[in-house]
Amino acid sequence: MRPSGRQPDELRQVRLTRHFTKHAEGSVLVEFGDTRVLCTASVEERVPPWLRGNRRGWLTAEYGMLPRATGSRNDREAARGRQQGRTIEIQRLIGRALRAVVDLEALGERQVVLDCDVLQADGGTRTAAITGSYVALADAVGRLLRDGSLRRNPLHGQVAAISVGIYRGEPVLDLDYAEDAEAETDMNVVMNDASHFIEVQGTAEGHAFRRAELDGMLDLAQKGISGLLEAQRVALEE
Amino acid sequence: MRPSGRQPDELRQVRLTRHFTKHAEGSVLVEFGDTRVLCTASVEERVPPWLRGNRRGWLTAEYGMLPRATGSRNDREAARGRQQGRTIEIQRLIGRALRAVVDLEALGERQVVLDCDVLQADGGTRTAAITGSYVALADAVGRLLRDGSLRRNPLHGQVAAISVGIYRGEPVLDLDYAEDAEAETDMNVVMNDASHFIEVQGTAEGHAFRRAELDGMLDLAQKGISGLLEAQRVALEE
Amino acid sequence: MRPSGRQPDELRQVRLTRHFTKHAEGSVLVEFGDTRVLCTASVEERVPPWLRGNRRGWLTAEYGMLPRATGSRNDREAARGRQQGRTIEIQRLIGRALRAVVDLEALGERQVVLDCDVLQADGGTRTAAITGSYVALADAVGRLLRDGSLRRNPLHGQVAAISVGIYRGEPVLDLDYAEDAEAETDMNVVMNDASHFIEVQGTAEGHAFRRAELDGMLDLAQKGISGLLEAQRVALEE
Amino acid sequence: MRPSGRQPDELRQVRLTRHFTKHAEGSVLVEFGDTRVLCTASVEERVPPWLRGNRRGWLTAEYGMLPRATGSRNDREAARGRQQGRTIEIQRLIGRALRAVVDLEALGERQVVLDCDVLQADGGTRTAAITGSYVALADAVGRLLRDGSLRRNPLHGQVAAISVGIYRGEPVLDLDYAEDAEAETDMNVVMNDASHFIEVQGTAEGHAFRRAELDGMLDLAQKGISGLLEAQRVALEE
Amino acid sequence: MRPSGRQPDELRQVRLTRHFTKHAEGSVLVEFGDTRVLCTASVEERVPPWLRGNRRGWLTAEYGMLPRATGSRNDREAARGRQQGRTIEIQRLIGRALRAVVDLEALGERQVVLDCDVLQADGGTRTAAITGSYVALADAVGRLLRDGSLRRNPLHGQVAAISVGIYRGEPVLDLDYAEDAEAETDMNVVMNDASHFIEVQGTAEGHAFRRAELDGMLDLAQKGISGLLEAQRVALEE
Amino acid sequence: MRPSGRQPDELRQVRLTRHFTKHAEGSVLVEFGDTRVLCTASVEERVPPWLRGNRRGWLTAEYGMLPRATGSRNDREAARGRQQGRTIEIQRLIGRALRAVVDLEALGERQVVLDCDVLQADGGTRTAAITGSYVALADAVGRLLRDGSLRRNPLHGQVAAISVGIYRGEPVLDLDYAEDAEAETDMNVVMNDASHFIEVQGTAEGHAFRRAELDGMLDLAQKGISGLLEAQRVALEE
Repeated sequence: MRPSGRQPDELRQVRLTRHFTKHAEGSVLVEFGDTRVLCTASVEERVPPWLRGNRRGWLTAEYGMLPRATGSRNDREAARGRQQGRTIEIQRLIGRALRAVVDLEALGERQVVLDCDVLQADGGTRTAAITGSYVALADAVGRLLRDGSLRRNPLHGQVAAISVGIYRGEPVLDLDYAEDAEAETDMNVVMNDASHFIEVQGTAEGHAFRRAELDGMLDLAQKGISGLLEAQRVALEE
Repeated sequence: MRPSGRQPDELRQVRLTRHFTKHAEGSVLVEFGDTRVLCTASVEERVPPWLRGNRRGWLTAEYGMLPRATGSRNDREAARGRQQGRTIEIQRLIGRALRAVVDLEALGERQVVLDCDVLQADGGTRTAAITGSYVALADAVGRLLRDGSLRRNPLHGQVAAISVGIYRGEPVLDLDYAEDAEAETDMNVVMNDASHFIEVQGTAEGHAFRRAELDGMLDLAQKGISGLLEAQRVALEE
Repeated sequence: MRPSGRQPDELRQVRLTRHFTKHAEGSVLVEFGDTRVLCTASVEERVPPWLRGNRRGWLTAEYGMLPRATGSRNDREAARGRQQGRTIEIQRLIGRALRAVVDLEALGERQVVLDCDVLQADGGTRTAAITGSYVALADAVGRLLRDGSLRRNPLHGQVAAISVGIYRGEPVLDLDYAEDAEAETDMNVVMNDASHFIEVQGTAEGHAFRRAELDGMLDLAQKGISGLLEAQRVALEE
Repeated sequence: MRPSGRQPDELRQVRLTRHFTKHAEGSVLVEFGDTRVLCTASVEERVPPWLRGNRRGWLTAEYGMLPRATGSRNDREAARGRQQGRTIEIQRLIGRALRAVVDLEALGERQVVLDCDVLQADGGTRTAAITGSYVALADAVGRLLRDGSLRRNPLHGQVAAISVGIYRGEPVLDLDYAEDAEAETDMNVVMNDASHFIEVQGTAEGHAFRRAELDGMLDLAQKGISGLLEAQRVALEE
Repeated sequence: MRPSGRQPDELRQVRLTRHFTKHAEGSVLVEFGDTRVLCTASVEERVPPWLRGNRRGWLTAEYGMLPRATGSRNDREAARGRQQGRTIEIQRLIGRALRAVVDLEALGERQVVLDCDVLQADGGTRTAAITGSYVALADAVGRLLRDGSLRRNPLHGQVAAISVGIYRGEPVLDLDYAEDAEAETDMNVVMNDASHFIEVQGTAEGHAFRRAELDGMLDLAQKGISGLLEAQRVALEE
Repeated sequence: MRPSGRQPDELRQVRLTRHFTKHAEGSVLVEFGDTRVLCTASVEERVPPWLRGNRRGWLTAEYGMLPRATGSRNDREAARGRQQGRTIEIQRLIGRALRAVVDLEALGERQVVLDCDVLQADGGTRTAAITGSYVALADAVGRLLRDGSLRRNPLHGQVAAISVGIYRGEPVLDLDYAEDAEAETDMNVVMNDASHFIEVQGTAEGHAFRRAELDGMLDLAQKGISGLLEAQRVALEE
């Protein structure tokens, strides 16, 4: 039934390539099928002005899409002089998701910036970005622990995200672009490795959804996210 | 247990004052306790460029907060030269919520702009804005029907929104600022009068939330929204 | 002769509602007939960078119009990303007018920001804003005196403003929108309670005006402003 | 008494150099003493979008100050990315003043842009700009009449402007920077050759001014402007 | 002598990977050693407004650097709201370079946009971008020829670019970051396959350079560019 | 052969008028024929934030063109809210060129800003700006030496610039607008008084240029620049 031939509860192939670029403290290319996002974690030994002197760190995220990551070219946001509403929403979501697993006091007075840049888009870029950013963040934190900048690990959990939706009347997991463009409902779910929710964002695109449909989507999401958490662990052990 | 002395499932006092200003086709002051938002619906006999010639209408929303609607003054967005991420997120949410009950083809090639301006903030401004905007929209549509610009009603349902959260470990309905500032989880729920979901946005502020907590919050939201839908009906019948 | 049936020297009904919103140190809804402007005075315990360390305070004003305060909707300035020339002129005028009655040294190293937001426009919004801002400022200063932050009153006078114009060949006081749109000359006059001028801004819209016409308008303005000063005193004594 | 040794009613030396640059349809360097402003009039065979198809023309003005026209360097507005409030006020004033002597229907569907750029500032740049712009406009219109683009002269009068103020308690004409920095009141007056007022803008800088002081300043302004109108006529006859 | 151990006239390893992403008409990852730039060519069936109706096409380029393409993180230009001067210079250079080998009339009324995004920077990003863009452009043009949109090939030559410089007193080819940071002179040279110059941009960073040094650098550039042209041909034949 | 009747190696008349305006530490009107650029040097007793505390000075340049400096009016960059790419390129070039002859340590912790504003354009504005800025800078430095702010001269050479090009197949010196609009190749050359190169920027506008053409243009540039250096010396000795 799905354009890709996948089962309703089947993820696309997930790949997490660490050390994709050489400068960043963490650099991961995450692929959910044809969706490819480069996530880098940059450590900066300073915090934003409003946090100075509080002995706490900060973590923030920025998101961008290369102009031709998509089927037709989008304007370059830097040239237009401002980020779109969609971009702002996504980068705020990524930041909140990752902060949910970081002890900012343990991080010390420094900042981690996660840059998520979409090289190729095929649906689910924000969930791929969250999932990949966790690995980039873990690499950056690992480096700080190894070089003695941090004494204890500020990460108190794993975080991953997946989309679910109602496609042709049925709940499906990890929508690709062909499904997303047609879905009646689209939901992004962020969870940690205790199987608790960090963020749930569901939107009716076509008709409003019933409580039972919501429950079905949440079940799928829980299942999909355990697969992603496992993929993160495997990647980090390599 | 709640700072306001309310029961966990108790809404604040809701007031919907129609015809609050005289120029707009719909103009409603909505109050959820001390939160006061002026919602106006403006009808324009044109559509955005990307929609021209499609025989469909459009509905969009803009949100603003007066600089001193809050306890300490915020910068005026017009003076800073850009809207904050929070503002953009909220106005996109309001627009999606209201479009979910409008048949854009039946609206004809015209646009309705909903302006939601917060005069006084005490938590829940976005849910008040959605709830009040529906009444302003109904007034504007009523006028188009009465003057013969529209032959059939493009509204195919009612829409209202409420916040729910986990406050001191317990699910509560319609958080005011004192609760919101301290809540562990905050969720905004938008529903229609068929008791179906249009949007669900839940965010863990403190600790991640369990499926049972999510279910408890959704139950409260459903209950609160029926009260709001009833208040809208009463206001529109006056 | 006037569309409203008023005498040439007759003000519209003036209402000054104090404590209109709850957060600001001063909050006044001023109404000149159907023109309604919310004026809030916010006290901030800091001054702009160029004034730091000078033991003087500062007072500034910002002005905005809700998009649908007028007969047809105006773009939201925050969304367009900049304030219009008209807005900038008006807020500079309000700031100068109010600073003319404040002893900035007596204010101490703090800042008062006056936000004037037009909820409904029917001509004369800038003069209403100045007249209402004085009352909001007086309330804010009163609070500082009561709580001991200020030892002596930095206000050394009252200030109010009114528009005058030549309408169908005759000088008239306090133009509403119907008159303003048609007036040949439009003048805004700001005066203090010593009956001296703080600002005079007259513009020929249609034909240039003669010295005798200018004199006639100034006479009307003086008369109108004494009425406004009296209304301010009454409001502040309540 | 005046720093320059001038009489209270004495203008600085006024020079109007036509054809100062070669490309513009009108190009005048105006000097009021050490204040030097280059005024160019550019004719464009199109009107702004909101005026298209109305068989009327338009006239607008833009004002700028070279960064080092003044004693200490100001930021370049093009580099900062926006014009200051002062700049916007001045260019709006220049535009209104010049439009007051132009019959926009007789101008036909074309636009004149007046660019006033201050090469050196010593007080009174806006009044010099208005006075010089009139001559540049007359040259541009003269060219359109000579080449047959216009059949009748759209100029129905002359316009000039001067500043007056209260300096050390006495009304003085045409303030230079040394006086302006110290003046208690500053007023800019724009008049036509029928000795009628086009614009009056008076601001109390120090103490508020009395009606008698206002009258004294207006008398001086009237006298000064006749001198400027004469200088314009002489320049245009050369 | 060189940090990389290369000979003075030795290029870094050059790799040109076609079809690096799937949506764009041309998509090439170009690598000059550790410098990696993704170049996409997007064909749009419209031209900029100023070119409409002229039966000619247009080609333009945009350049960006991912925030962490470099050793320390740079601000994201989209978030800052404007492109840096360096970015603007580079994208103008890329556009001119590529237009020099395109017959814009033969292209027809369509536009090619070249997006050059630096994934990893190690010196020479602009010369890599030009060299890779040519291959992306050739792929996009090839597709237009194959699908019959174009009857004759608008490309009338190849174009490639390389940097040369004076490093520790000696001319060297293709500077990497370690050399570039220390070079006394830096020159970018763009040439076509007839061995003629399209652009020469040389800048003295340390001391000014003599004519003989300039000649030496130009000799190296000519040699290096033949290697790049050969690499382009090999890539396109695969 | 040249529109102006000049010999291929003949400069236009060069005029350097010092003290053109009175406020700046250096103020020079430079004319290359009909091209007229006002160059001012402003000394500021502070450096940009990134240089503070380094005991070094800085020199930067800004460039602007009055809207009607050209045959048809250009938008005012301050009103459009951003500088064009061409402007940014030119001001960066001027800054680099002048910094090449300044010992920034000898300058001390202060900044010189060179403002180059084109009053009238007829080709070669950037080369005139560099040539005139050197004289303005020399005047500003001379003043600092005379008043004791500087002990030793931070200028260690002269700098001047000229354009060369291929016009109708032949290399020519100092192109005016008529030639520039038609030239096949356009090159700007910046040199010091040791006859060494500071910057070479050559662009093929029509066909790519051969090495021999490049050599011919460089020969002309060297000749032209010695004339300019001599004109600078003469001006500074007056």
